[in-house]
Amino acid sequence: MGTVYEKTATSPVNIAVIKYWGKRDTSLILPTNSSLSVTLSQDYLHSKTTIRASPDFEKTRLWLNGVEDTDIEKNKRLQNCFRETRRLRKEYEEKLCKDKGADNVIPLSEYNLHICSENNFPTAAGLASSASGFACLTYTLSQLFELPISATELSKIARQGSGSACRSLFGGFVAWEMGSQDDGSDSQAVQVAPQDHWPELEALICVVSDTKKGTSSTEGMQNTVNTSTLLQHRIEHVVPLRMKSMIKAIHERDYQKFAEITMQDSNQFHAVCLDTFPPIFYLNDVSRAIIRVITEYNSSNPERKLKAAYTFDAGPNAVIYTTSENIPEIINLIAKYFPSNENTSDYFSDPFQLFVGKTIGEQPLPLGFNDQIIPVFPKGSVKQILHTKVGEGPKVIAGEFDGLLNKQGWPKRLK
Amino acid sequence: MGTVYEKTATSPVNIAVIKYWGKRDTSLILPTNSSLSVTLSQDYLHSKTTIRASPDFEKTRLWLNGVEDTDIEKNKRLQNCFRETRRLRKEYEEKLCKDKGADNVIPLSEYNLHICSENNFPTAAGLASSASGFACLTYTLSQLFELPISATELSKIARQGSGSACRSLFGGFVAWEMGSQDDGSDSQAVQVAPQDHWPELEALICVVSDTKKGTSSTEGMQNTVNTSTLLQHRIEHVVPLRMKSMIKAIHERDYQKFAEITMQDSNQFHAVCLDTFPPIFYLNDVSRAIIRVITEYNSSNPERKLKAAYTFDAGPNAVIYTTSENIPEIINLIAKYFPSNENTSDYFSDPFQLFVGKTIGEQPLPLGFNDQIIPVFPKGSVKQILHTKVGEGPKVIAGEFDGLLNKQGWPKRLK
Repeated sequence: MGTVYEKTATSPVNIAVIKYWGKRDTSLILPTNSSLSVTLSQDYLHSKTTIRASPDFEKTRLWLNGVEDTDIEKNKRLQNCFRETRRLRKEYEEKLCKDKGADNVIPLSEYNLHICSENNFPTAAGLASSASGFACLTYTLSQLFELPISATELSKIARQGSGSACRSLFGGFVAWEMGSQDDGSDSQAVQVAPQDHWPELEALICVVSDTKKGTSSTEGMQNTVNTSTLLQHRIEHVVPLRMKSMIKAIHERDYQKFAEITMQDSNQFHAVCLDTFPPIFYLNDVSRAIIRVITEYNSSNPERKLKAAYTFDAGPNAVIYTTSENIPEIINLIAKYFPSNENTSDYFSDPFQLFVGKTIGEQPLPLGFNDQIIPVFPKGSVKQILHTKVGEGPKVIAGEFDGLLNKQGWPKRLK
Repeated sequence: MGTVYEKTATSPVNIAVIKYWGKRDTSLILPTNSSLSVTLSQDYLHSKTTIRASPDFEKTRLWLNGVEDTDIEKNKRLQNCFRETRRLRKEYEEKLCKDKGADNVIPLSEYNLHICSENNFPTAAGLASSASGFACLTYTLSQLFELPISATELSKIARQGSGSACRSLFGGFVAWEMGSQDDGSDSQAVQVAPQDHWPELEALICVVSDTKKGTSSTEGMQNTVNTSTLLQHRIEHVVPLRMKSMIKAIHERDYQKFAEITMQDSNQFHAVCLDTFPPIFYLNDVSRAIIRVITEYNSSNPERKLKAAYTFDAGPNAVIYTTSENIPEIINLIAKYFPSNENTSDYFSDPFQLFVGKTIGEQPLPLGFNDQIIPVFPKGSVKQILHTKVGEGPKVIAGEFDGLLNKQGWPKRLK
């Protein structure tokens, strides 16, 4: 066996504060509006992908969370990412060939690939894994192929796998500029601010139990485009102003403005879902109760300041952006109103050791908080509380033991 | 004791199919958009009001559902109705005086009033009682005072008690034209079609259990006016078109169009509530499950026709407008997924004897209906199903025994 051409990388989850909902081109995945997200730390949530290229492989194969996807030929979004990265690799090989001679070029663009990808968070958590997954696939391919392109250029390829994947190519605060070109050449992600720009900003994810299967976002957003009479107004008149204000708020670390726009845009995203025909619902009674708790927390505090901001994607889970000093109060509030199932040890792992010697849900409520605002919910209504921070973009992992393929280029673990 | 000046009348509930949400003048109660409703039969739902005028009464007093309202002087909306009807009575008295001489005029406009009003449906049902109540108050006053004015003129007074009360002054199908004048002189109700225009159209009310106290509509709608960035678009561009289409659909008895607009406008009303900051929620998980059942019923039937239309006001209760032939199927569906509490005899009274010898909830589902669309909900999630039809406007009740005041002019029943 000769040289092994293999790379392993990880990519983060991003949670939008200005939401992407609606495509103007479903094939190129061009959105109807710009969006903006915060990249979450990979310490707790990430996708990991190992890709090996070899002339010995009979065909290109993909394993996702330990299960082979035997239908990758028909997966147009996957093929978009393969085609575009291979095309760039081919160009690069031709350039190398011209500059250094054919002997110095490995024709990786013609090799088959073995791709193994995993998320370190359960799909059951209901966190969108396609964004981090496609970002990871595209990034790992670009590293394997040594593509001489920027992350913004690469984001246009990841975008064709899963729209919001383009935002997972950067750490920190990331805008997906919708662009105006028909070919998508200006629909790309750019970093608004790096991960260390606003160290106080942290995130809590409340994983909400839900029995109902929601509408897929791919299907749902086009139904909204086709039937909502409010969406066009949002696209043309609301989002452009919010993007400007949000970027300013982030640059100035203005939490009041950041929180206000975050909550308003989450509300409006779910409003246009409801204005779809038939209507799309992602929030359930638990989601709405979390909104009530945060609203009371924001309106009852003596400083009369916004201290927490909720946002909900295409599911019932709440993500709460807040600043460090409020984290213990909010975790305690969530745990009080949405207590853990008795047999669940992974309800809250307290990664930053904030409750040493204290029981969450049993600490005093914040001053002025009206404890009658909602009833205490049945145990297990919130399955898990994750505490995490703003994080960095995709990164290559060096060690052999970290890769997902064995020496022969096959998955180490299968289900 | 001399002549008794007393009138008793009843007024109907109306349920909007194009929703009123937002005032451009909170004092005169002028809306930001026109709306349209269907008046429901008074056989099952009505307000009843008895009013006596007497020079012997020390002051004007009001009893509502057996409890005296001792704060009526401060109730601006109530005083609006008193002031406007008394002003018209005064004008009428002056005219009578001129035409027939002072001896032929009873100065009712100067007498104090005893007013007793009741709803025949429990407030707990969560059905808006202020519309039928204020319509009944205004109508009974107009009858007692023998005001020589049309129902549309009278609607401008009822409107100043409770906006949607103006629509309860007519039977059948009723538009509240928003008007454009600052003084409200053209903000009035008109009948679009009489009650016998579309005899097949019927209504089911699903009374949904809810533990949470919702936002009052008076407060909620102005929060939406002040904070929603979508409401203006609805007001200016969506509702005017829907009003035209809905009036046409009613005139042509076009159920497909009627049902589509009804559902879309209910969805949009709740969408702008959600776009309010902080957001307003009226639909709960049971409401949303009813929407899913109706959506499945509409999409799975072999004729591919809309067969039922849901609409929700400022609360979790569903009103379903459908045509006669579908009523048994829909009642059966609701009863299957939202079964009755065991000890509840008033879950469904079957007023039109549709299920003689049959158990609701246990009949076969409609052809093609996917019974896995939602789980069966806990017993009592829907507390009651009311079956009713399109009905007539306010009417005077003649008999002495029907009045709510005794011979001396005091409430027969107090709580």
